[in-house]
Amino acid sequence: MPQQLSIHSPLDMHLHLRDGEMLKNIAKASAHTFSGAIIMPNLVPPVTNKEEVIAYKSRIMEAIGEESFEPYMTLFFKPSYDRAFLESVRDEITALKLYPAGITTNSEGGVSGFDVEELRPTLTAMSDLGIPLCIHGETNGFVMDREAEFVSIYEKLATAFPELKIIMEHITTKESVEALEKHPNLYATITLHHLLITLDDVAGGMLQPHLFCKPIAKRPHDRKALLEVALKAHPKVMFGSDSAPHPKEAKEACGCAAGVFTAPIALQVLAELFEKHDALDRLPDFISGNAMRIYGVTPPSKEVVLEKSPFVVPNDYNGVVPMYAGEEIAYSIKEVNVG
Amino acid sequence: MPQQLSIHSPLDMHLHLRDGEMLKNIAKASAHTFSGAIIMPNLVPPVTNKEEVIAYKSRIMEAIGEESFEPYMTLFFKPSYDRAFLESVRDEITALKLYPAGITTNSEGGVSGFDVEELRPTLTAMSDLGIPLCIHGETNGFVMDREAEFVSIYEKLATAFPELKIIMEHITTKESVEALEKHPNLYATITLHHLLITLDDVAGGMLQPHLFCKPIAKRPHDRKALLEVALKAHPKVMFGSDSAPHPKEAKEACGCAAGVFTAPIALQVLAELFEKHDALDRLPDFISGNAMRIYGVTPPSKEVVLEKSPFVVPNDYNGVVPMYAGEEIAYSIKEVNVG
Repeated sequence: MPQQLSIHSPLDMHLHLRDGEMLKNIAKASAHTFSGAIIMPNLVPPVTNKEEVIAYKSRIMEAIGEESFEPYMTLFFKPSYDRAFLESVRDEITALKLYPAGITTNSEGGVSGFDVEELRPTLTAMSDLGIPLCIHGETNGFVMDREAEFVSIYEKLATAFPELKIIMEHITTKESVEALEKHPNLYATITLHHLLITLDDVAGGMLQPHLFCKPIAKRPHDRKALLEVALKAHPKVMFGSDSAPHPKEAKEACGCAAGVFTAPIALQVLAELFEKHDALDRLPDFISGNAMRIYGVTPPSKEVVLEKSPFVVPNDYNGVVPMYAGEEIAYSIKEVNVG
Repeated sequence: MPQQLSIHSPLDMHLHLRDGEMLKNIAKASAHTFSGAIIMPNLVPPVTNKEEVIAYKSRIMEAIGEESFEPYMTLFFKPSYDRAFLESVRDEITALKLYPAGITTNSEGGVSGFDVEELRPTLTAMSDLGIPLCIHGETNGFVMDREAEFVSIYEKLATAFPELKIIMEHITTKESVEALEKHPNLYATITLHHLLITLDDVAGGMLQPHLFCKPIAKRPHDRKALLEVALKAHPKVMFGSDSAPHPKEAKEACGCAAGVFTAPIALQVLAELFEKHDALDRLPDFISGNAMRIYGVTPPSKEVVLEKSPFVVPNDYNGVVPMYAGEEIAYSIKEVNVG
């Protein structure tokens, strides 16, 4: 019998479920195997009030159907949010997500400049209410430097709001890993693809649109730094796929959109990666335990049984091309047991 | 009357004319406005003997028809070439082109390792016969480091063969510009696109396959270093477009081929660029004079009259998408006078 492996209540702490047809097409790819996920609010227009959060969550619940899955909702951060507003929406959300203006897909209404005094009322209220702040940390500088340049802003905010939990989203650099060690209130999510690829995979041979994402994959020494903290399930890092579907046509068009779709293969490939590095015992914390502790959440109980038998990844899932499309991966999903 | 500008006998010291249908489709884009060009030998299979050079040149002459244009032919470098062979082919070629094995389009049969003693017989013979060596200088390292890592190989060869003219092809880095100053026998070609773009333009916003090339565009400080030597027409640099057509489908496919097609717009955009930097008086040396002196060639006399009136670049030339496709550039070609 092939080797089996059980993963309990996996969590994806950074997920794009989109809306409309795309939501219907891809929601189950996450909801089937994950127990819950932090849902990004960068719809068009972004999710910025209680009614929209509730409505978006209900559309998600409809899209996932019978699956046992908790969408942890977020609001699109605005410095205009006051304490009364945050108190009113507190029960509907798990975090706020801050985008620097114009930095990635649908982030046009984000924050410009990071003046601590301008942000103080909102961030103080979030800190008091125990609402974590998730940040897409990139400047508008040269593409390979954007995240490293943002680290000083992470550090400035972490210092100014020492009780605020700040999650550095989808970190890609050695500099971000180092910042994690310096500030007790800095945490991080790491994607699957940033553990696997560098810029070489995107643009070193042929140009590979399906591996193009923001932040862009960096250097080998950056990937090494990410792997080190992921494989030991550093207590401040969590898995967050940043799985970000775009229609096949938008990815392969001239001027392709940023985002890698990993939701349907993330658990299997993480198992393969952790096994290869003899770190399977750390996978539960990376993919569930750390997130439960950091966010203080208790997701629906789920057991995903993986089996070590080759699986050929489909060329697309309802028109969205996944990472490893058409390639063979080592693990298959044998069954999912709920409750 | 719009401002006019005459360019005399422009030379493109690094050009891919391909073969077969593609050659027929794109040869005139260069032959109409340029007086001559160094023709790259990386066909499939590569051009490696006298008969192939002669046959390829005759196919080129047929493709350019009535245009007055000199194709300066090259052989695909192999360390097995001996003095007798080089003597026999001397009159048919202007240079040899060395590709590290597997480094770019159709370079599979190139050089692996750069052992001076292994290369000594061929390079000594080239040196004695006055045949320049053109090199695509990239290692197989991380994509952003490949050219800088190769500089030590350029320097090793320049030192070991001090009478051999070595042309660093399509340089993209500050490191290569610096090497130019250190060795009297190192020269360089610079493309149009590397004077204009950085990695930001390829992958900083949307992914842009039509700006994807090898070597990949680098950092802003690299572009600045290239601009400095180009705009002053540094006596050791020459224009070489590396215009490299691929069918539209191959550029926009998932896993797109490397190469930017600039031949039809190179002169106009160079004029615009040099004018913007108040360096129009240096353009003749960058685009013709330096190459004539370095290579010792006298191309057919041609006057290209540019006119400062906007030109909308076609979306494609016989199925090949040019740089600036669909965009407006400042200069148009008014007329070309031969002889």
